[in-house]
Amino acid sequence: MAGIAHLVIMAGGVGSRFWPMSTPAVPKQFLDITGEGRTLIQRTADRFASLVPPERMWVVTAKQYAPLVREQLPEIPAANLLLEPCMRNTAPCIAYAGWKIKAVDPEAAIVVSPADHVVTDVAEFRRVIAHSLAFVTDRPAILTLGMKPTRPETGYGYIAVAAGQTQGILPVESFREKPSLAVAESYLAEGRYFWNSGLFLWHVRTLEAAFRTYTPALADLFDRMSAAFYTPDEQRAVDALYPECQSISIDYAVMEKASDLYVCPADFGWSDLGTWGSLHTLLPKDECDNASVGDRVKLVDSRHCIVHVPSGKRVVVEGLDGYIVAERDGTLLICRLQDEQHIKEFSR
Amino acid sequence: MAGIAHLVIMAGGVGSRFWPMSTPAVPKQFLDITGEGRTLIQRTADRFASLVPPERMWVVTAKQYAPLVREQLPEIPAANLLLEPCMRNTAPCIAYAGWKIKAVDPEAAIVVSPADHVVTDVAEFRRVIAHSLAFVTDRPAILTLGMKPTRPETGYGYIAVAAGQTQGILPVESFREKPSLAVAESYLAEGRYFWNSGLFLWHVRTLEAAFRTYTPALADLFDRMSAAFYTPDEQRAVDALYPECQSISIDYAVMEKASDLYVCPADFGWSDLGTWGSLHTLLPKDECDNASVGDRVKLVDSRHCIVHVPSGKRVVVEGLDGYIVAERDGTLLICRLQDEQHIKEFSR
Repeated sequence: MAGIAHLVIMAGGVGSRFWPMSTPAVPKQFLDITGEGRTLIQRTADRFASLVPPERMWVVTAKQYAPLVREQLPEIPAANLLLEPCMRNTAPCIAYAGWKIKAVDPEAAIVVSPADHVVTDVAEFRRVIAHSLAFVTDRPAILTLGMKPTRPETGYGYIAVAAGQTQGILPVESFREKPSLAVAESYLAEGRYFWNSGLFLWHVRTLEAAFRTYTPALADLFDRMSAAFYTPDEQRAVDALYPECQSISIDYAVMEKASDLYVCPADFGWSDLGTWGSLHTLLPKDECDNASVGDRVKLVDSRHCIVHVPSGKRVVVEGLDGYIVAERDGTLLICRLQDEQHIKEFSR
Repeated sequence: MAGIAHLVIMAGGVGSRFWPMSTPAVPKQFLDITGEGRTLIQRTADRFASLVPPERMWVVTAKQYAPLVREQLPEIPAANLLLEPCMRNTAPCIAYAGWKIKAVDPEAAIVVSPADHVVTDVAEFRRVIAHSLAFVTDRPAILTLGMKPTRPETGYGYIAVAAGQTQGILPVESFREKPSLAVAESYLAEGRYFWNSGLFLWHVRTLEAAFRTYTPALADLFDRMSAAFYTPDEQRAVDALYPECQSISIDYAVMEKASDLYVCPADFGWSDLGTWGSLHTLLPKDECDNASVGDRVKLVDSRHCIVHVPSGKRVVVEGLDGYIVAERDGTLLICRLQDEQHIKEFSR
């Protein structure tokens, strides 16, 4: 039953791969990356708006981003912002939200979503989420959304499924790391591999049981913190104990160990926007395969480029093939798309 | 005798080839193009400072640039700014200054200088100017400074000289338009060709006589305007009659017709800074032949580039070979150096 769903938005990333557009001060989830007038975290909340009321939306983020979240998502109650005093990867972040939710709603179904992904077919997205919520409400399953691969992408992790579907949902056989191109091509040909979207759903009881089973030390820390939840001492308790959490992703902490794992195959135009290349793929292109965000950008004798500048910024690009041209807050980057893995180094 | 010299700085250009660094609002003579802390017109006045006192410096420019000249050259009396109501090329500009000067100093020797050129050896420049002033004070000669060519440059006009030097100064045989590369190479080999610098000297009597002989209509217009010179009506008279002047360069109007033309060969590290390429040549380069103006510019795996951005602007350029990267007032240009002749089109 979707009516009691909660949404947990993970919004603590620093977005270093999109420098200089994304910076530690304002990482990509807080930016209007696609130039459509809403930031990525706003678009994330928007696409859940008809499924989850704001008082059941939770945002876990670093303390310094609290003002950005408040400003961009004013409809979410301030009490639903969970502020990490330090970065500890996704497992502690999700445990924090889970322990908070179970204290007020022990029958909650929970969707966990990154704040910085993109979905183009929102209607289909909502249909899949509603279907998936019903699935995890009825059984102790961990359900991930598996994206039907459309190309042999080497930038994503994959999930292999076994046979035996229930309501169109398939059991997980195993998680696979980012593959080589040859392996990605075989996955695509085989047809039983899906992109791991990082979107997953579970009942709060399933969440708690998983943490208690696979990461008991983490569960213990949140048991201790939870004594102060919903009291004036909460932040103080979190600040004191959260740093003791192991820094570990939910994939390593839970997913790769758990049973009762399922995949809901989905096809709603998803991208994790993890690279400039993925943004280039997503944006509309001109006849020379150039994508631009910015309202005064002129490309002359150029192809396969992505230009991302603030609105009002006048740019003339002549004679570039396969480059990123990006500017934010007075910092300009010009870089070959094929060399974007070096961007983190440039930003230092 | 250099003691009675006057300097006429021609500062009416719009500098469209250096867009976006140079714009019609603030053309290149008013910019610190080389990043050394003084604008080109300031450096022009500076290099004459020991030869000509400020009250004998005259600046001819468009009306809209008067505030820039006042701000950048506060030592020059406001009355020495001659304001053109419209662009009429260099001949009317020089005639205006000439008629103004002859009214107050009929024994003046005059140096005419563009506002936007660069000289690297200022001591040698001053020696050449002093020597040249003495030459034109003593005789009715028009003396141009001819730069010893150091490469087969196709971007400059040339002057061919005849034999028979006087005090190291040679008679002009003819002026030559910008040559092809093959012709420029033959000029360089032959040794009697010099780059036309646009710097020239003459006695005010020689100037007046030349205009009366070769452009009598222009001389007549300035005779009429001069009735109002040094009165409150001057600008009104200039505004009324200056537009009637033929728009013509001093080269076409006088130089290519006059006799008594001479060249003083000179070698003081001159550039007309007419192109991004010439600025690249002039500026210091890193080990990969990159030149940059700006204090936070980082070039990675790039060569033969010129980066020109405001101080404080952070720029990372990766993987470019032979490009211009220039920004001013929120406008960014990225363009192949070899295509810089198209820049005028981009600026529209």
